[in-house]
Amino acid sequence: MAIETLNVSIVGGSGYVGGELLRILLFHPGVRIQQVTSRKFSGIPVSFIHPNLRDTTDLKFSSPDHIKPCDILFLALPNGESMKNMRKWMEIADKVIDLGADFRFRKAEDWNYWYKSEHTFPEVLVKFVYGIPEINREKIKSAKYVAGPGCEAIVSILCLYPFVKNKIIKNFPIIIDAKMGSSQAGSKASWSTHHPERSGAVRSYKPTGHRHTGEIEQALKVFSPDLSVCISATAVEIVRGILVTIHTFLNGKCDEKGIWEILKKEYRNEPFIRFVKMDQGLYRFPEPKVVMGTNFCEIGFEIEERSSRLVLIGAIDNLVKGSAGNAVQCMNLMAGFPEKTGLEFSGIHPF
Amino acid sequence: MAIETLNVSIVGGSGYVGGELLRILLFHPGVRIQQVTSRKFSGIPVSFIHPNLRDTTDLKFSSPDHIKPCDILFLALPNGESMKNMRKWMEIADKVIDLGADFRFRKAEDWNYWYKSEHTFPEVLVKFVYGIPEINREKIKSAKYVAGPGCEAIVSILCLYPFVKNKIIKNFPIIIDAKMGSSQAGSKASWSTHHPERSGAVRSYKPTGHRHTGEIEQALKVFSPDLSVCISATAVEIVRGILVTIHTFLNGKCDEKGIWEILKKEYRNEPFIRFVKMDQGLYRFPEPKVVMGTNFCEIGFEIEERSSRLVLIGAIDNLVKGSAGNAVQCMNLMAGFPEKTGLEFSGIHPF
Amino acid sequence: MAIETLNVSIVGGSGYVGGELLRILLFHPGVRIQQVTSRKFSGIPVSFIHPNLRDTTDLKFSSPDHIKPCDILFLALPNGESMKNMRKWMEIADKVIDLGADFRFRKAEDWNYWYKSEHTFPEVLVKFVYGIPEINREKIKSAKYVAGPGCEAIVSILCLYPFVKNKIIKNFPIIIDAKMGSSQAGSKASWSTHHPERSGAVRSYKPTGHRHTGEIEQALKVFSPDLSVCISATAVEIVRGILVTIHTFLNGKCDEKGIWEILKKEYRNEPFIRFVKMDQGLYRFPEPKVVMGTNFCEIGFEIEERSSRLVLIGAIDNLVKGSAGNAVQCMNLMAGFPEKTGLEFSGIHPF
Amino acid sequence: MAIETLNVSIVGGSGYVGGELLRILLFHPGVRIQQVTSRKFSGIPVSFIHPNLRDTTDLKFSSPDHIKPCDILFLALPNGESMKNMRKWMEIADKVIDLGADFRFRKAEDWNYWYKSEHTFPEVLVKFVYGIPEINREKIKSAKYVAGPGCEAIVSILCLYPFVKNKIIKNFPIIIDAKMGSSQAGSKASWSTHHPERSGAVRSYKPTGHRHTGEIEQALKVFSPDLSVCISATAVEIVRGILVTIHTFLNGKCDEKGIWEILKKEYRNEPFIRFVKMDQGLYRFPEPKVVMGTNFCEIGFEIEERSSRLVLIGAIDNLVKGSAGNAVQCMNLMAGFPEKTGLEFSGIHPF
Repeated sequence: MAIETLNVSIVGGSGYVGGELLRILLFHPGVRIQQVTSRKFSGIPVSFIHPNLRDTTDLKFSSPDHIKPCDILFLALPNGESMKNMRKWMEIADKVIDLGADFRFRKAEDWNYWYKSEHTFPEVLVKFVYGIPEINREKIKSAKYVAGPGCEAIVSILCLYPFVKNKIIKNFPIIIDAKMGSSQAGSKASWSTHHPERSGAVRSYKPTGHRHTGEIEQALKVFSPDLSVCISATAVEIVRGILVTIHTFLNGKCDEKGIWEILKKEYRNEPFIRFVKMDQGLYRFPEPKVVMGTNFCEIGFEIEERSSRLVLIGAIDNLVKGSAGNAVQCMNLMAGFPEKTGLEFSGIHPF
Repeated sequence: MAIETLNVSIVGGSGYVGGELLRILLFHPGVRIQQVTSRKFSGIPVSFIHPNLRDTTDLKFSSPDHIKPCDILFLALPNGESMKNMRKWMEIADKVIDLGADFRFRKAEDWNYWYKSEHTFPEVLVKFVYGIPEINREKIKSAKYVAGPGCEAIVSILCLYPFVKNKIIKNFPIIIDAKMGSSQAGSKASWSTHHPERSGAVRSYKPTGHRHTGEIEQALKVFSPDLSVCISATAVEIVRGILVTIHTFLNGKCDEKGIWEILKKEYRNEPFIRFVKMDQGLYRFPEPKVVMGTNFCEIGFEIEERSSRLVLIGAIDNLVKGSAGNAVQCMNLMAGFPEKTGLEFSGIHPF
Repeated sequence: MAIETLNVSIVGGSGYVGGELLRILLFHPGVRIQQVTSRKFSGIPVSFIHPNLRDTTDLKFSSPDHIKPCDILFLALPNGESMKNMRKWMEIADKVIDLGADFRFRKAEDWNYWYKSEHTFPEVLVKFVYGIPEINREKIKSAKYVAGPGCEAIVSILCLYPFVKNKIIKNFPIIIDAKMGSSQAGSKASWSTHHPERSGAVRSYKPTGHRHTGEIEQALKVFSPDLSVCISATAVEIVRGILVTIHTFLNGKCDEKGIWEILKKEYRNEPFIRFVKMDQGLYRFPEPKVVMGTNFCEIGFEIEERSSRLVLIGAIDNLVKGSAGNAVQCMNLMAGFPEKTGLEFSGIHPF
Repeated sequence: MAIETLNVSIVGGSGYVGGELLRILLFHPGVRIQQVTSRKFSGIPVSFIHPNLRDTTDLKFSSPDHIKPCDILFLALPNGESMKNMRKWMEIADKVIDLGADFRFRKAEDWNYWYKSEHTFPEVLVKFVYGIPEINREKIKSAKYVAGPGCEAIVSILCLYPFVKNKIIKNFPIIIDAKMGSSQAGSKASWSTHHPERSGAVRSYKPTGHRHTGEIEQALKVFSPDLSVCISATAVEIVRGILVTIHTFLNGKCDEKGIWEILKKEYRNEPFIRFVKMDQGLYRFPEPKVVMGTNFCEIGFEIEERSSRLVLIGAIDNLVKGSAGNAVQCMNLMAGFPEKTGLEFSGIHPF
């Protein structure tokens, strides 16, 4: 391939999203990783934290204070951090992909409401494109600044988008019952992630008021301004992965064939959308295990006639399609690389 | 205690429910286990199948063909089996507690609809009391025949009953999103329970049309005839336990205080209902881990004001409050034993 | 039972051993729990930390500064802590059971060697009885001070003792390959116990130099002064439990029958030793799952003729027979209660 | 790359090894998968069984009766099956790589002893090269027939080989304490793999007499004819992966530096051997999680001076370096492809 090699850097490289960016980008033929920062582990090999990268790379963490100009900058920081230095990030890099929540909203008041703090750099919010290629592909191609969506938001939006857009489901209630792995809470140890406590959990940790509600509504209200969604999130005994069971109600009569047509119309050529709905076998519906390590979003559904309920089921790896992998997909679009570059991994079975 | 010792037998003792009945009844001061049947393992010590009972009992499985008269008979058979010989069971025992689905419905057509087969002994359906002590205590006390509820049904009904009865929530939609452990599928090995396939699963196995819908509606329509419920069931990586996240919508204005009042009014003196709703800590809501091995049903809730949603959360051990333990609780009522006898186990933390 | 009720207190009640002492003692008919201390959680209900005890007790943690005189005092503190105040503990209580490592050795230099620090109260070491009832029952009965053994030590000693005592195995090598659950590392969160890191681990965390080596050698050298043992410890994906696979070599010819005779001679009447060795079935050898929550130590073996190897296999729950349960067994002996009191729990299957 | 595309087929494609061969070979630039057989699933898409391959391939299983000539044939059959038709396999393919046990031994009597049955095609045993590239690279390059080693054998041999060859350790005892995942038992459901039974197991399933003993001794006796090894195998709660803890004793004085020199001498340029021994951090020794999905064999060690014990620690993914991946590595050597082709995957962290 005669593609130019771009210099990319990662700010916040010691977390799980940072590690996943590394895992993907180290094998991406179009980029060279220039710097990976970590204040805490500066000077230490990245494989000390990400042991899967042993013998794959000699990279060491840099201090964020020594970050150098680069072509593309990935920010993998805790929510509320990237806005503090966004001016600087925009200066040192042509293109910035922020994986935190800071620039996902169009309006500062949405940030303020959902994150219970004042947005400190609202004037650039409109410069950011919300990074879902399946919905915003053309905008992402020409974007300088992309905000990667929340992991629970992206899988929910990808499930709901075709049906909201095509006015198939009622605006309310749309109930997202999300089952989450432990990696979603990040790499910092705490009582709630202490193995004897977290192991075997089926733990209702956010029954109402989930922050991603705002993102999802923002993305879908474009098509249906009156829509509102409800989320309940439960932590389950996996490390990676999200399954969403989305309970919606059909607007009118729509059979299985109709649902299929809509899905195919919207996603026919999507490289990372995989439909899963089988009559037989074990893996009849989307499942996080199956997409672990991959950039796929699996989507399935079932109709309950007696209640006019349409259950949508979606599965992703929260660190890949839910974060790092999707960010690389955006980067591929922004840089003119083939969209699947670096994201070919098929997943593992069984594990 | 000057209580009489009753002779009890268990038909279908090699399954998980049978094993759990054994575990509880072997330590129950009011009963003597007369026989435990298993066609397949006849003559073999029960501890071969239930290794926790090693050195606790020398009991061996009997053939079901050699079952003898007894005071109380527990039936722990696959659905559709107990009706085949119910005439015989009623002859050999004064009291029968059936843990299968055969006699849970009042009307044969409900069985026929949900279990897709013809009920073969409908004339005795009305003789059975549906075995939820928290709702039917007085009827159970005088019952000769009790049908133990389905595991998913009992936890859902216990969560919903106070709010349906007190007209607090809308009749529709009531969405039960159930997370289930692997023991719920029984002790028979299959592809779907093969460890490499089942391990780490977050598997949507019954997105619509769950059989327990019928039971739940039957129990709740007493209070609100127009009500209907929707279930989606997902298998998660635990062996024992169910968590239900029930999405309901408030009929009118009702704050947290109001919800608490209703819960306390209905369940104040219930020995096995435990309210769990905390502002802090790890175990803020009901959780299957915490009740594992116990007869508790934990109930919690959260209100989402912006959507008028009341999320009810319930957790049980599917083999205890969801089956064997609840059956012993019924037996205690039927036999005049103190209701908690044999069911004092507090659970384990951590594990 | 006309037994006197003793007042017992627990110093260090917020850890896993403290919680397990609570779980057992709350149901023990011969004792009343007077105080449970925790500096950090003083004033807070114990069920905040030990959620299985919700609705079972209203006890709150006391400050260790306010500890009052009692009949029996349990110390469940980090290693090196109990010696700091042992003088005080001995004043306020008639009898002290220390579950830490501080008073397990007869000689201060053994402590100094294995725990790499100077023992600060060596003069009372000889007053402590090493608390393994199966070996030191008579001494424990008359003891005022008991040191509970390490979890890995007790299961290893119980497996090896009959064979060392009866000169059946060579003094060297005796290799203990221990598989450990995560609760053994305590209740404090850290990187190594962070769920995404610890989940699914098969982690060699102490290949050589394990501290319990000293305890085991001290206990067994009584019978064979030249003996020495080697330990390697691996963390596996369970919360509770230890399995030890002990590789020993026969001194001379000894067949299966001979091994059985020795085991029966030494342990025939032991209430908590369970022999497990079957030709068929799933649970042919000892297994931590089966003893979870119980005070049993399961022991099994297999002989490899071509190498004269005798493999001993032992399983315990590290928090019960490996700590709190064994301590209660010691207390029962010290207080004249029937030895099994409070320890009848049979375990759970499956989970 | 100007490499020729070879036609390869897989006999026995519905098992876990077959699935893993597919996963790897579908992305291998030098081969085209011609056929994958399964008698049971003939005509069905391979992704029905291997759901990770959905949308990656349209391949369907063929009947083994319709197998066609090809360049390289992989046999992934139960032990004892490949010998039945080996004559036929040798006719239809230039090169055969057998992943079962049938042709691993040089002498039929070794098969007969360890597999308790008569070898039916002993005359070709000597034509097979034992497929460990790190030891037999040159022989494999020119081989027509390769027998892939057992998963437990290969990791044990790779750990022991440098030290046996260089006479660093005693010939006896060499004790291999193996911790195994559930996928190692294959894809067929049974009581022992039923999730509620297998979950959370630390199960001593083969304390003595493990079949791989014969393979390991055959490979190492080349260097030290008097050597003998002992294996104990324990099933633990992972799906993929093996950890071996190998207890050996030093022949004479040898310090850490000496051990390192030997390891580096033997394995310096090995593409899939990774040394892991760190003073700090979480991943200080080899670990199955870290190599999951990869072809790496991690090797580490620790010396216990007081006992002259050298503990060797090895970790592999049993389905990759322990089977399919190693077979592809052999194929690369046999076909003249770069040795790492198709095997670049770095592994996932965390999961």
